Amino acid sequence: MNGAECLLRTLLANEVDLCLMNPGTSEMQFVSALDRVPRMRGVLGLFEGVCSGAADGYARMTGKPAATLLHLGPGLANALANLHNARKARSPVVNIVGEHSTQHLGYDAPLTADTEAFARPVSGWVRSLERATAMGEAASAAVAAALGPPGKVATLIVPADFSWSEAGEPACPAPRPSRHLPSNEQLRASAFALRSGKVVGLLLSGSALQTCGLLAAERLSAATGVRVFADRYAARISRGGDVPGVERLPYFPEAAQALLAGFERLVLVEARPPVSFFGYPGLRSSLAPAGCAFDVLASEGEDGAGALEWLAQELGARPSGGATPGPLRPALPSGEPLTVAAVGRTLGALLPEGAILSDESVSSNEQIWPHLAAARHENLPVTGGAIGQGLPVALGAALACPGCKVVALEADGSAMYTLQSLWTMARERLDVTIVILANRRYRILDIEMRRTGAGTVGRRADKMIDLTHPEPDWIKLAEGFGVQAARAATADEFIREFGAAMREAGPRLIEAVLDLPKGR
Amino acid sequence: MNGAECLLRTLLANEVDLCLMNPGTSEMQFVSALDRVPRMRGVLGLFEGVCSGAADGYARMTGKPAATLLHLGPGLANALANLHNARKARSPVVNIVGEHSTQHLGYDAPLTADTEAFARPVSGWVRSLERATAMGEAASAAVAAALGPPGKVATLIVPADFSWSEAGEPACPAPRPSRHLPSNEQLRASAFALRSGKVVGLLLSGSALQTCGLLAAERLSAATGVRVFADRYAARISRGGDVPGVERLPYFPEAAQALLAGFERLVLVEARPPVSFFGYPGLRSSLAPAGCAFDVLASEGEDGAGALEWLAQELGARPSGGATPGPLRPALPSGEPLTVAAVGRTLGALLPEGAILSDESVSSNEQIWPHLAAARHENLPVTGGAIGQGLPVALGAALACPGCKVVALEADGSAMYTLQSLWTMARERLDVTIVILANRRYRILDIEMRRTGAGTVGRRADKMIDLTHPEPDWIKLAEGFGVQAARAATADEFIREFGAAMREAGPRLIEAVLDLPKGR
Repeated sequence: MNGAECLLRTLLANEVDLCLMNPGTSEMQFVSALDRVPRMRGVLGLFEGVCSGAADGYARMTGKPAATLLHLGPGLANALANLHNARKARSPVVNIVGEHSTQHLGYDAPLTADTEAFARPVSGWVRSLERATAMGEAASAAVAAALGPPGKVATLIVPADFSWSEAGEPACPAPRPSRHLPSNEQLRASAFALRSGKVVGLLLSGSALQTCGLLAAERLSAATGVRVFADRYAARISRGGDVPGVERLPYFPEAAQALLAGFERLVLVEARPPVSFFGYPGLRSSLAPAGCAFDVLASEGEDGAGALEWLAQELGARPSGGATPGPLRPALPSGEPLTVAAVGRTLGALLPEGAILSDESVSSNEQIWPHLAAARHENLPVTGGAIGQGLPVALGAALACPGCKVVALEADGSAMYTLQSLWTMARERLDVTIVILANRRYRILDIEMRRTGAGTVGRRADKMIDLTHPEPDWIKLAEGFGVQAARAATADEFIREFGAAMREAGPRLIEAVLDLPKGR
Repeated sequence: MNGAECLLRTLLANEVDLCLMNPGTSEMQFVSALDRVPRMRGVLGLFEGVCSGAADGYARMTGKPAATLLHLGPGLANALANLHNARKARSPVVNIVGEHSTQHLGYDAPLTADTEAFARPVSGWVRSLERATAMGEAASAAVAAALGPPGKVATLIVPADFSWSEAGEPACPAPRPSRHLPSNEQLRASAFALRSGKVVGLLLSGSALQTCGLLAAERLSAATGVRVFADRYAARISRGGDVPGVERLPYFPEAAQALLAGFERLVLVEARPPVSFFGYPGLRSSLAPAGCAFDVLASEGEDGAGALEWLAQELGARPSGGATPGPLRPALPSGEPLTVAAVGRTLGALLPEGAILSDESVSSNEQIWPHLAAARHENLPVTGGAIGQGLPVALGAALACPGCKVVALEADGSAMYTLQSLWTMARERLDVTIVILANRRYRILDIEMRRTGAGTVGRRADKMIDLTHPEPDWIKLAEGFGVQAARAATADEFIREFGAAMREAGPRLIEAVLDLPKGR
């Protein structure tokens, strides 16, 4: 079989059965092979960042990679921002990037670029295929590299002639890795830290923030009094229902540093030492107090949940005595203006059990978070901070979990970067509800302008932050991509629209026109 | 003054007075400084590829760089595809990329990335600022590097603390370079080639494709019989009116190779040896015949028009005897279905004198080109082939040339990658008319599927090429961004809408729903 078919069949052998694509001439053989390899699902994105972000969302929900199919160096370039986010999420992703045929590469054709150089900053593994007959082996190697653990972005660059040449049979699948418990030494060092009499905190990230890890951490906390914190930039946090709540580190460094003040040791569970999102004049970047010591209970590729379970047993925590009653859902607002809090309460009240929430709400995030403590859902936060993550991640999560309601929480600024996602949601009839928090500004920048010491926002600076003149009309934009849409300007209108979206399947966008305090 | 103000003032001293921006926290000082440096025009883009593509378009029309202001590595990543196009266009562009503050860079914050690595593949010059007091000097060095000649993408990476720290006075401007005539040796070698009795062609690119170069080439051709060809991927081609026409190399290699068959020497004027856009099974990538020799009359950074003028005099060409009557404008179609040819004839008939045409029409390009031979306009073609160029280039050209009508010719596939450009056109009230050639497919891929030997398009492959289910509604998309829009489904409707757009200023989009031959 030719290289393209060999690659698709090898991916399938590796349980990679979704390919998010924006193909061009050099990838035609892969597109054609879809008809001979029907188990591979091809999903078209109208912009490459949609494909890469969707692969991230898919990986966060399944733990396994989707493939992307991208057109040469410049196609990969358009995918990079969301691959940066996937890298920070430790999501396994397999990029297949078409390249000019080998004889053509020597010429400086218009689309010729240094594809490997584009790939390297975001990829844990990069390989340019050397010959057609290496296709199967290389595809399995890419999947193995992507799976880690921890998950990585693996990029396989395939010259077009290797796709159309004879490549032999598909390769054997790569072994499926599993996360191992940390070494006894590591486990005992953390147990020692918790028994040290010092003020110790646990910082959880990665797989430790899913249900098993959170349950073990809660038992540990009950037994030892250790405070448990969540990395706010983890790929996924299980929340609500019977899942124990976890305190998330605040966004701004002052608040985070205040929360961690007095801690003498932090035990890291698949987490790195906590750091501020941005640096500011006169502020420390590290969120832990000066002199705080760090113990690594589990590194990023290890089994943090298992390690927490071991630690709980070691320290004499009692087995979980059945479900602790969680917090109650908030009451729906009524007759109120549509504030950020009203949106949060509505989401918290109406989010169906088992929903997935892709959250890229930027300036509103801190106010909405507490209202979602009761609703049992999977939260997919910002990881790498490259804007344009939320819609594609929601798209990928919906592809991963048919039957689950997916909600994407966006700002009118952040939703703009990869809005082409809406079209793929419409085409694939995905069950995604998009809430656009419309404040008509890059509102976070109003705050950051002061914090970075840049002063007040003058008339000309304001034009770079203001999103009016003209106001984007999200109803028309959504409908332009084939997604049903409605606008809500009061809490009651939002309740009606969001409630309807929760009851019915299919993509839908709600523009929540926020009632904002005067004078910003 | 602080670093941000020093940088803006140094750019102004270098005649760089336009900054296309999508700023974030690390660039707040630059945004704030706009109020203290009012001669610097800030223009907001809602996606970074809009900014970089607009800088390319601006440079093609003015010969000087605009600045972009981008947010960290991931913001730069979103700009890369159009920076690839700018690089291939040899457009001078100055990227200012904000970076984390130096003390923050040591931490692995979410947005931390290898910004230099993102910059290198597209940049002829990259520098990470070493200290605040080097700001002025570095900004002038960036402009000097961008100007070349030939023009380059220059990327200056500025840690946030150098923006907010004292940086001293703005630097002296860099010397303005000019293109030099090639060496006497080069000139004489080309003269020798033209006198050699061999079958010789001239291939023009770069500045040689503007009026002076084309006039000199015409005189040379009249005197010696040499055939003159245009690089189809040049940044800008002057066309119509009194400007001599020039034969463009065809897109597909078979046609281009047939055109160049029999040529024994090609004299390159700011051009490289011609090469096929893609490689295909069994086809040569070089468009010149095997054994064809190349002479370089002028390299990319040299004065090709001046060299042609020298050559014309040297070979005894008579001075131009006044304007030769150019071709006539095509007749308007009437009562016809809206074919690609009907669109071409309408454009050719109604394009106002002095218009600018940004052309990213892909599969329709070859059919439209001949109809535009009479209308005096500046044509801005695809250069690097990274899709998403056309709308931003039109935006930048409109910023460069207020008072000129700008037309962007797009396909419904290609317009999708950087459609956020529409919002900036609306905000800045730019005189851009966008024609969307809606064939509801990545139509070029139907052709390429056969050409790459991938065979026919089966049902599942078709889904990756088809843009229906749902059909994007370009009227709603345009209106969603604040741009007036209309649909045309017959030639008469298109004439009415395009005519109205030519008579009135301001942004406007026309969706031309093409009547396509059955069975594709």
